[in-house]
Amino acid sequence: MSSSFGEIFKITNFGESHGKCVGVVIDGCPAGLPLTEEDIQIEVDKRRPNSGAGQTARQEEDKVEVLSGVFQGYTTGAPICLLVWNRDIDSSEYERMRFLPRPGHADYAAWKKYAGFNDYRGGGRFSGRVTVSLVMAGAVAKKLLKLKNIEVLAHTIQIGEIQAEASTPEMIRQNVYQNPLRCTDLAAAVKMSRLIEQTGQEGDSLGGVIEALALNMPAGLGEPYFDTLEGQIAKALLAIPAVKGVEFGAGFQAALKRGSQNNDPLVIRNEGIETDTNNSGGATGGLSNGMPLVVRVAVKPTPSIALEQKTVDIQKMIETDIKIRGRHDVCIVPRAVIVVESMIAVTLCDLALRAGLIARVIK
Amino acid sequence: MSSSFGEIFKITNFGESHGKCVGVVIDGCPAGLPLTEEDIQIEVDKRRPNSGAGQTARQEEDKVEVLSGVFQGYTTGAPICLLVWNRDIDSSEYERMRFLPRPGHADYAAWKKYAGFNDYRGGGRFSGRVTVSLVMAGAVAKKLLKLKNIEVLAHTIQIGEIQAEASTPEMIRQNVYQNPLRCTDLAAAVKMSRLIEQTGQEGDSLGGVIEALALNMPAGLGEPYFDTLEGQIAKALLAIPAVKGVEFGAGFQAALKRGSQNNDPLVIRNEGIETDTNNSGGATGGLSNGMPLVVRVAVKPTPSIALEQKTVDIQKMIETDIKIRGRHDVCIVPRAVIVVESMIAVTLCDLALRAGLIARVIK
Amino acid sequence: MSSSFGEIFKITNFGESHGKCVGVVIDGCPAGLPLTEEDIQIEVDKRRPNSGAGQTARQEEDKVEVLSGVFQGYTTGAPICLLVWNRDIDSSEYERMRFLPRPGHADYAAWKKYAGFNDYRGGGRFSGRVTVSLVMAGAVAKKLLKLKNIEVLAHTIQIGEIQAEASTPEMIRQNVYQNPLRCTDLAAAVKMSRLIEQTGQEGDSLGGVIEALALNMPAGLGEPYFDTLEGQIAKALLAIPAVKGVEFGAGFQAALKRGSQNNDPLVIRNEGIETDTNNSGGATGGLSNGMPLVVRVAVKPTPSIALEQKTVDIQKMIETDIKIRGRHDVCIVPRAVIVVESMIAVTLCDLALRAGLIARVIK
Amino acid sequence: MSSSFGEIFKITNFGESHGKCVGVVIDGCPAGLPLTEEDIQIEVDKRRPNSGAGQTARQEEDKVEVLSGVFQGYTTGAPICLLVWNRDIDSSEYERMRFLPRPGHADYAAWKKYAGFNDYRGGGRFSGRVTVSLVMAGAVAKKLLKLKNIEVLAHTIQIGEIQAEASTPEMIRQNVYQNPLRCTDLAAAVKMSRLIEQTGQEGDSLGGVIEALALNMPAGLGEPYFDTLEGQIAKALLAIPAVKGVEFGAGFQAALKRGSQNNDPLVIRNEGIETDTNNSGGATGGLSNGMPLVVRVAVKPTPSIALEQKTVDIQKMIETDIKIRGRHDVCIVPRAVIVVESMIAVTLCDLALRAGLIARVIK
Repeated sequence: MSSSFGEIFKITNFGESHGKCVGVVIDGCPAGLPLTEEDIQIEVDKRRPNSGAGQTARQEEDKVEVLSGVFQGYTTGAPICLLVWNRDIDSSEYERMRFLPRPGHADYAAWKKYAGFNDYRGGGRFSGRVTVSLVMAGAVAKKLLKLKNIEVLAHTIQIGEIQAEASTPEMIRQNVYQNPLRCTDLAAAVKMSRLIEQTGQEGDSLGGVIEALALNMPAGLGEPYFDTLEGQIAKALLAIPAVKGVEFGAGFQAALKRGSQNNDPLVIRNEGIETDTNNSGGATGGLSNGMPLVVRVAVKPTPSIALEQKTVDIQKMIETDIKIRGRHDVCIVPRAVIVVESMIAVTLCDLALRAGLIARVIK
Repeated sequence: MSSSFGEIFKITNFGESHGKCVGVVIDGCPAGLPLTEEDIQIEVDKRRPNSGAGQTARQEEDKVEVLSGVFQGYTTGAPICLLVWNRDIDSSEYERMRFLPRPGHADYAAWKKYAGFNDYRGGGRFSGRVTVSLVMAGAVAKKLLKLKNIEVLAHTIQIGEIQAEASTPEMIRQNVYQNPLRCTDLAAAVKMSRLIEQTGQEGDSLGGVIEALALNMPAGLGEPYFDTLEGQIAKALLAIPAVKGVEFGAGFQAALKRGSQNNDPLVIRNEGIETDTNNSGGATGGLSNGMPLVVRVAVKPTPSIALEQKTVDIQKMIETDIKIRGRHDVCIVPRAVIVVESMIAVTLCDLALRAGLIARVIK
Repeated sequence: MSSSFGEIFKITNFGESHGKCVGVVIDGCPAGLPLTEEDIQIEVDKRRPNSGAGQTARQEEDKVEVLSGVFQGYTTGAPICLLVWNRDIDSSEYERMRFLPRPGHADYAAWKKYAGFNDYRGGGRFSGRVTVSLVMAGAVAKKLLKLKNIEVLAHTIQIGEIQAEASTPEMIRQNVYQNPLRCTDLAAAVKMSRLIEQTGQEGDSLGGVIEALALNMPAGLGEPYFDTLEGQIAKALLAIPAVKGVEFGAGFQAALKRGSQNNDPLVIRNEGIETDTNNSGGATGGLSNGMPLVVRVAVKPTPSIALEQKTVDIQKMIETDIKIRGRHDVCIVPRAVIVVESMIAVTLCDLALRAGLIARVIK
Repeated sequence: MSSSFGEIFKITNFGESHGKCVGVVIDGCPAGLPLTEEDIQIEVDKRRPNSGAGQTARQEEDKVEVLSGVFQGYTTGAPICLLVWNRDIDSSEYERMRFLPRPGHADYAAWKKYAGFNDYRGGGRFSGRVTVSLVMAGAVAKKLLKLKNIEVLAHTIQIGEIQAEASTPEMIRQNVYQNPLRCTDLAAAVKMSRLIEQTGQEGDSLGGVIEALALNMPAGLGEPYFDTLEGQIAKALLAIPAVKGVEFGAGFQAALKRGSQNNDPLVIRNEGIETDTNNSGGATGGLSNGMPLVVRVAVKPTPSIALEQKTVDIQKMIETDIKIRGRHDVCIVPRAVIVVESMIAVTLCDLALRAGLIARVIK
């Protein structure tokens, strides 16, 4: 396990799906940032399933507690430990499946790596549940970024084969959390809901694509050669369970373009330098170039499905079938939107501190 | 700049396109690995343009020198410094363009980040030239992986709109370096060559897609929560100039699948556990699962094109045109194949050491 | 703040003297280690003042809670969060001294660094209270080291001008925790007690010297060039408040010796290679050499004293006097013994994992 | 091996005593710092033995080459590779001693750790020769510190039993490099010279103590909990071969003092806050407090002596004698002075960057 991310704004998460709690320690947060439990609670609440659109029925209160690093309403410069306690846990189902690795899950790989000592209940450390720690860290990161006017926005652009129409930042800002699908194209959202409902009834699951933007980006974030803007963000996003691909700007479509189409011409706008197009997605040479960061992630369909699947009993070493019971999101894409947003915020915050853009004390 | 990558097998590169040299220090390589300059030279030579298929005419001898860390034919456990000297450099062209950031290049972002102090000649630190350091490091990594029978293979699967047919590992192994396109589908390779030639004549450039495999992967490589197998590899690959997207297994196509289609059923094969399909690309829960690693990277078209482009004179702050003269690869995809291979090898080597799969001394 | 230590066995602590809790996250602990709350409680209890010998009267229950990373009695490979809640806190005294930095304390430096946002109550992050996190981490480290038969022992060898006679490992093992002074020379311990009592009555405080050993050390621990055995241990020990010096083997006395006196001749003993003397303190070239590690730390006198002292009112910028009220250890040396032991254990554990001596899974 | 030090100003050294070269890569140096080879050469020359006072006769030209990271006289923000080539090497002597570990040297520990693959010629990686890399890095660090007026001074205060009188910073500044002993007390220096000469004639060697100061220190350098000012400096200094102890301010003498004697009262001076005494050596709570940093290191006697010593033939596993021939410093203390200075400068530079005191671009 290597549960830390970031060089200056460094987060270390802990906790498992069916353990006592999920938490995160943020070390290196500047002193002097106003911070309340409510600031973090608001973000954590965005991760909740707030509709019947095929999301898990587990009641997660997720009441955030600040255990350290905040004094008299401000961060102190000391590590900030944030925690939510786990509740409403029934692990009995997982005893039955202990030696039956669920296809598409980490079960088999984790069993090999940890020689069976890993906490297998609810996926343990590999559960989507643990992403609440990322959202808590993201809440703090967003507050820091706001000081520099940097804003991170994410939204669902595809679920299964249903794609949303393009949207403006203003549309995302207004609509995304009003909407259980986290999709700004309301017509598409209706279709997505229906598809999720239908797929759930079939005992199956869905994936999708999330797009994220970072606005008001300064030029120069990123620490090449290896800690590039894109590399750090991709690494952060691939830590989110179910993410299988990351692309920036034109991304895989860039492969089809000519240089003359893909290059973004520089122009003068608002007395500053911008590019006329943004095929780069805001990053050139591993550095932000002042244009909006544009990143898309592919989310695979939820591996937990009600349909019977083939697997191997790893104790008896025989092929067998498995049927996963209980509550599972048919599609985790909408709930992952805030997680994507959070991890981008955490990454940008760390890079902004590394570049000296955010000071070590907020005055 | 943050020019180091890896936790145990840690590489630190240095050098610029038009500086004295390009080099890399590998720290943490186990002692006792047989290593010669020839081992590294063979790999570096694969990065050479070995055909007229639209690649740069710059004569890069790239004679590898081992400056430290090897004694009597074996690695010593001390840092290994590998270096190639730069030759055949004409920087005059870059004086003319000093204040004219080339569209699609790092020029503008770097100028902002380093306040104009960056070495702008030939792109300096951001030049594809610097990737020779990655290939040198990869050569050592591959030798270590070979001890565990792990093999990394990469090949061109798309240039512009031309896609290659699927190929087997054996086909890649046999054909890829016999072929200036690094493409195993020879019919497609011919078309790619023609397209490159034609596009070059038009003064334009091309991108493409590279696919890489790692075979004989043990289960359990990857250090979640954050140093996942996919995250570390994506970060490594996004350090390669022009890479704009990374996906694993089904990747972005997974978004279109149902869980029942995308989940890989576990089966018993060769007395071990495998999955029947490999939509996961060999990674679940951020860990290798014993199946081949499958990763694809999107490479954008070479930003240096002969066509006139719009830019801004950053000294005079006026919009203007730029025409880039000189030799440039119309398509860097084929030359990037060995670089992709190398960075995957470096990443796997580090993860294998972190997992204790490769010992700290080779006996 | 940089609250993490270690590369593989990485600890991250959090919490303040008068905050909610003090805790530590241990990331990178191998899976499969049997671990109970009791294992850790035993160590934490050693940090308690168990006599009237001038130690603080604060009742610290310090009931250890394991929040994550342990399942069915074994470590899982996931981060282990350990925590004690703070109780019995009266912070009123510190409001009075808010702008009166206490001489010898971190108050002034912290106020400058964190621009006054630091939690000043009870010294906040800089309080000796926080060392309970180190002891919790040490408890886990010791269990891992025990697997390799490595044992860490520390004891008081000097308090004020009173020095203890030399002692054998067996004497330390038997006596040190039977004894509130943590001193194996019982005659010296009596004198130390008296000195502490008398000095306390005078409103003053005492420092001292702690010696630590690590027995059954394998050769080869340490990762030069920079992460030397001595360097890592010194860094770990200097994180303990009040430690002002660290020396190994002959230490500062080596300056007075000739090479012929200080060099340790190699000899064959018990069919292995040892050195006849141990002036090196078990470390040569930054590596353990198989002999017992011997390290001594200088502990300054407790800065909190009852006597009136000169300071500056940093708000009014005038010189003034300060009188610190309340309960304070006259001499923290005895309570620091377990902390020294713990930090050495944590360091050795990390180096043993880095050297591959301890496996990533305990089977 | 872990050959990197520092978080932002990160140095990675490479090379061996009898290999091709010794070098260092400095990554994270701010762009815009004027830097020439001469700047570094001046410092490297201070490491030369410039008298007959018992120092090695090896002619080390040590002509510094800047291989990367500097362009048009300024640092570019890219990694700076600095290198000296090895010359005048005769390794024949070491073949004879290959299986005879020299007492007091790293030979035995390294042979165990690297299973005999380490370069044993001249001590290889463990040779004092490698410290030239530290001095090169220190030269750059000093230039950065100078921007903030921070000055690092070191001097010999003891050789064998001969101690120098106390000296002022001005005395050190004026005298230390005028003097082969690096001692400001010229009367003591004469005695030291004689002692070195005499001890050399006896075939023996000497150790000593070096004191270093850092002046004009800002308050707030250091990143507790673990990367304390003292901890980082101690780690840096213990990487220098032969250093066996480090103490700050009153150091081990603090153990003898009462709190009322050891606490440094705060006072107003020059319109700022200082302490009346400096027993803390400029560090409280792991942070600089604005007073001069004062640190002393114990240097053991050179382990290479001409006298016959006992050792073990590790191939034949028999006890035997060893006589080390050739040229060796009788006392390396004077030559280590610049190395101590350099490592303190490197450490402070990194901490100043981490604290945001030095900007990422020098304008």
